[in-house]
Amino acid sequence: MRITVLAGGIGGAKFLTGVRAFAEQRGQDGDPSEVTAIVNTGDDVTMHGLRITPDLDSVLYTLAGVIDTERGWGRAGESWRIKQALAEYGAEPSWFGLGDLDIATHLVRTQMLDAGYRLSDVTAALSQRWQPGVRLLPMTDERCETHVVVSGPGPEDPRRAIHFQEWWVRYRAGLAAEAFVQVGLDQAKPAPGVIEAIAGADLVLVAPSNPVVSIGTILAVDGIGEAVRTTSAPVVGLSPIVGGAPVRGMADRCLAVIGVPTTAEGVGLHYGSRRDGGLLDGWLVHSGDSAVVPGVSVRQRPLLMTSAEVTAEMVADAAGLVGIST
Amino acid sequence: MRITVLAGGIGGAKFLTGVRAFAEQRGQDGDPSEVTAIVNTGDDVTMHGLRITPDLDSVLYTLAGVIDTERGWGRAGESWRIKQALAEYGAEPSWFGLGDLDIATHLVRTQMLDAGYRLSDVTAALSQRWQPGVRLLPMTDERCETHVVVSGPGPEDPRRAIHFQEWWVRYRAGLAAEAFVQVGLDQAKPAPGVIEAIAGADLVLVAPSNPVVSIGTILAVDGIGEAVRTTSAPVVGLSPIVGGAPVRGMADRCLAVIGVPTTAEGVGLHYGSRRDGGLLDGWLVHSGDSAVVPGVSVRQRPLLMTSAEVTAEMVADAAGLVGIST
Repeated sequence: MRITVLAGGIGGAKFLTGVRAFAEQRGQDGDPSEVTAIVNTGDDVTMHGLRITPDLDSVLYTLAGVIDTERGWGRAGESWRIKQALAEYGAEPSWFGLGDLDIATHLVRTQMLDAGYRLSDVTAALSQRWQPGVRLLPMTDERCETHVVVSGPGPEDPRRAIHFQEWWVRYRAGLAAEAFVQVGLDQAKPAPGVIEAIAGADLVLVAPSNPVVSIGTILAVDGIGEAVRTTSAPVVGLSPIVGGAPVRGMADRCLAVIGVPTTAEGVGLHYGSRRDGGLLDGWLVHSGDSAVVPGVSVRQRPLLMTSAEVTAEMVADAAGLVGIST
Repeated sequence: MRITVLAGGIGGAKFLTGVRAFAEQRGQDGDPSEVTAIVNTGDDVTMHGLRITPDLDSVLYTLAGVIDTERGWGRAGESWRIKQALAEYGAEPSWFGLGDLDIATHLVRTQMLDAGYRLSDVTAALSQRWQPGVRLLPMTDERCETHVVVSGPGPEDPRRAIHFQEWWVRYRAGLAAEAFVQVGLDQAKPAPGVIEAIAGADLVLVAPSNPVVSIGTILAVDGIGEAVRTTSAPVVGLSPIVGGAPVRGMADRCLAVIGVPTTAEGVGLHYGSRRDGGLLDGWLVHSGDSAVVPGVSVRQRPLLMTSAEVTAEMVADAAGLVGIST
């Protein structure tokens, strides 16, 4: 079977290890299966002249087994000499986590982009090295960067739009935010293969990623939301909210900006039923979290991704929820 | 007094520590003195998307006291994680010494150049941080990169032009070379201040740098050779050849390409007397090296730059050779 996953960074990456394990098991059971991940690039940013794609990197490093599992992003055994040396030059920004090993990846990527390759070409090239076992597609090859309309921190600081990374990393999502804006969204087209991967899937999964700045951004790209709504494949989402809080990260701060309650039900209702022009056929929520989403099959089960095997069982349950036997 | 020095990388950098010490001593003796270095940029190269200026960096790091004195280039305490990580990506070239701390400098430089600043602006900005105590000017703001016409190493390898760094670092100057060509020379203009620094000097010094690919390249830039020939200041050179061999580096291989003997006299004759349209009024050679250069005052003295103080004495002798009392 063909499984297509909409995914953000850390949560999406972990989830994909489970989807890959699920597909491998299915292959061993006589159904050769392939996984395509459509990855958010709204967090992408250029810093110190380097083009940085945090979510694609988290997915790639995680699937390659070289992620720093403690930190959740960047490479294991990372060092920070260049970051320090740049700070000594007074080169801004100094608040972004720019690891030495990571910079090698950024240099390869930046040089390929400068040479005219598309981000999807770069992603394929990096996948050659890391062999993630999942086909990785950026949501778009165009720059489409999430900005946040903020004010503060001081009373004199003007209302302004700052890059999502600045809000997220520098201010730890602590600046009063009123909206997210994707700069470049009007020019962004789905990357090659994205629409086909959704339309031609046997199952579409919405990873337990940030519903606003990961999944929401992917869906905002021209044609992707429509492809999810109209694919013949069933679409199942997994709640990133467990017991009223994000499992990891600060998704609650993003949900607050768009007025969605930080609950499994709140996110499920925000995604909505495909029957009613929404996203979902099925919605997996954590044991103990209740959710009523009209037109959507909801099931409770443990949603903590403690290992690839445990996560693969979540994927099996997601498939079962829409009648795919495993 | 105003002292202007034509300088290459490692030898030029060491020499400048002596010129700076000489100028400081002169200042203490009641003659406020300033030093301007016109630095070769023919070795500059772009690798992995980074703009690299080896000679300017050697000068800057040496004057700042952060050079790796053992290696002679790059920063003390350097590490090589990114170089290794790039090699693991299969990103070429893998033979160039790209240190982690160095990369921070290259990132700052590359980003400034991409933003439209000139190399001379970048050099001034980096000097703000490193406070070299010498005004550093690139010979030109334009790209003007030395290439080497080579053949080999195999019998099938065609005659071709490769970047100087490839010949020098990758092949250790071991490929048969027939000529040096500066790509971009026809477009290169002296950087702001270069001509004025030569014309307005009280003393012009030619550092004991590579006569071919450092000093020769500087002089080849439109107007610089003419400025040296016509300045009212005396011009004194110091021989980089000691006892028939370069003190350091492989200048002999470069001299062979242009048919100049690797002797103090050979280089002195190659530079020639200003009286006859050449470069020099004075020529300091190492004790025991004889040199007869018509029209040029030649003096023997120890020319090993073992410390800034010892080198300052060389500078004093160079000044004395053309009648500047110290």
